Amino acid sequence: MRVDVLTIFPRMFTGPLDESIVKRAREKGLLQVNLVDIRDFSLDKHRTVDDYPYGGGPGMILRPEPVFLAVESLLQGGAGKKPPIILLSPQGEVFNQAMAQELAQEEWLILICGHYEGVDERIRAYLATREISIGDYILTGGELPAMVLIDAITRLLPGAVGAEDGPREDSFAWGILEYPQYTRPRSFRGLEVPEILLSGDHEKIRVWRRKKALERTWLKRPDLLKKVSLTEEDRRLLEEIVKENQGML
Amino acid sequence: MRVDVLTIFPRMFTGPLDESIVKRAREKGLLQVNLVDIRDFSLDKHRTVDDYPYGGGPGMILRPEPVFLAVESLLQGGAGKKPPIILLSPQGEVFNQAMAQELAQEEWLILICGHYEGVDERIRAYLATREISIGDYILTGGELPAMVLIDAITRLLPGAVGAEDGPREDSFAWGILEYPQYTRPRSFRGLEVPEILLSGDHEKIRVWRRKKALERTWLKRPDLLKKVSLTEEDRRLLEEIVKENQGML
Repeated sequence: MRVDVLTIFPRMFTGPLDESIVKRAREKGLLQVNLVDIRDFSLDKHRTVDDYPYGGGPGMILRPEPVFLAVESLLQGGAGKKPPIILLSPQGEVFNQAMAQELAQEEWLILICGHYEGVDERIRAYLATREISIGDYILTGGELPAMVLIDAITRLLPGAVGAEDGPREDSFAWGILEYPQYTRPRSFRGLEVPEILLSGDHEKIRVWRRKKALERTWLKRPDLLKKVSLTEEDRRLLEEIVKENQGML
Repeated sequence: MRVDVLTIFPRMFTGPLDESIVKRAREKGLLQVNLVDIRDFSLDKHRTVDDYPYGGGPGMILRPEPVFLAVESLLQGGAGKKPPIILLSPQGEVFNQAMAQELAQEEWLILICGHYEGVDERIRAYLATREISIGDYILTGGELPAMVLIDAITRLLPGAVGAEDGPREDSFAWGILEYPQYTRPRSFRGLEVPEILLSGDHEKIRVWRRKKALERTWLKRPDLLKKVSLTEEDRRLLEEIVKENQGML
């Protein structure tokens, strides 16, 4: 997969692209990240890319020309391909695991990191094909959101994550929160690993984990339970969970 | 504010901490970020910090001892202060701007970045005082989420953001999405800046922006409108918006 990132802070990506799974995916040739400095497409000699807002108010707004020119230069070298052109912004659709899975199917993405609060509206309306937010909070720019997208998507590229890197049954892959995990030592300062995990009974362990995952989701994020399709077993386990917790309240 | 970050990838923070507002806040002494390598607290000679999960399954789980020891060594040097100890994890409360404002009041935070899907449950249950997720997606680790928290919180520290850095009326500061912004040129490839922004009539511009912000929120994120308290004027503008958009449908 090829990802072009348009940014005014290309050096921000130094650490995140050079560690862990993203680093390995780049080394394996699964991922190619191309950082494009928007300032290189500024038409003035001071390489400015922003200006005051029309109508007044504080803040500087990212100008349309350098961003249009940067995207167009990428598309010109793109042999007619039409990648999604994604503006990272707090006004976009809220990113989630299903969107990561969808974007992992693309062979090419263009990500635009603007000033997070001030991007000329013509970029949003006439250049970007999609607008994505990573959550309901304000950041300095779209750079961290772009890194979040790249990390989430890279993990889903075939071959990027080995068995050693993480369980397949993680949160949101199931659509609900993950079950509790334990590793050595078996007893840490008197805090014990649950007996059942030491039993070797794989079926019992499977059911215990599923129940714990459902219970945690029911307690912390009941909104997620409405979005997944539950099996017969899930429904039975949820009934047990509700009964057990009624005793606690 | 002091932020201690426990991580197995300290180098990932290189770029993000050395640019933009976070860089300047550090230079001004408003923010001190202390990266703690969890491996330094491993008790074995190979500096391992993870191990296989009890009960089987893929993935490696972050062990409890090095993380407990790292946090405890920080607290010992902390003169009896009790900072929030925040585990970044997909199972936590979902981060938002109100939480950023709340955390910006703290003088000291400890952030634990674990393997994002596999942290020994005893860390979650007995060490962390709070668990935060930046959104419903799976990342490699808690590092990018920690950077997101630091960026969102730093912007709110008094003196960190000058007037030149961004409007105060940005998305989520109002609790709704931001109005459209425009800067030069006034006409770009035939795409014009709305006349009203050139009118110089501040009151008309204020009302237009408020209406556009409400309209955008109503169209893209109606869930946010339920969470904010609307003024009389807002309600009147929303009525206009609903009427105008009924004509369009």
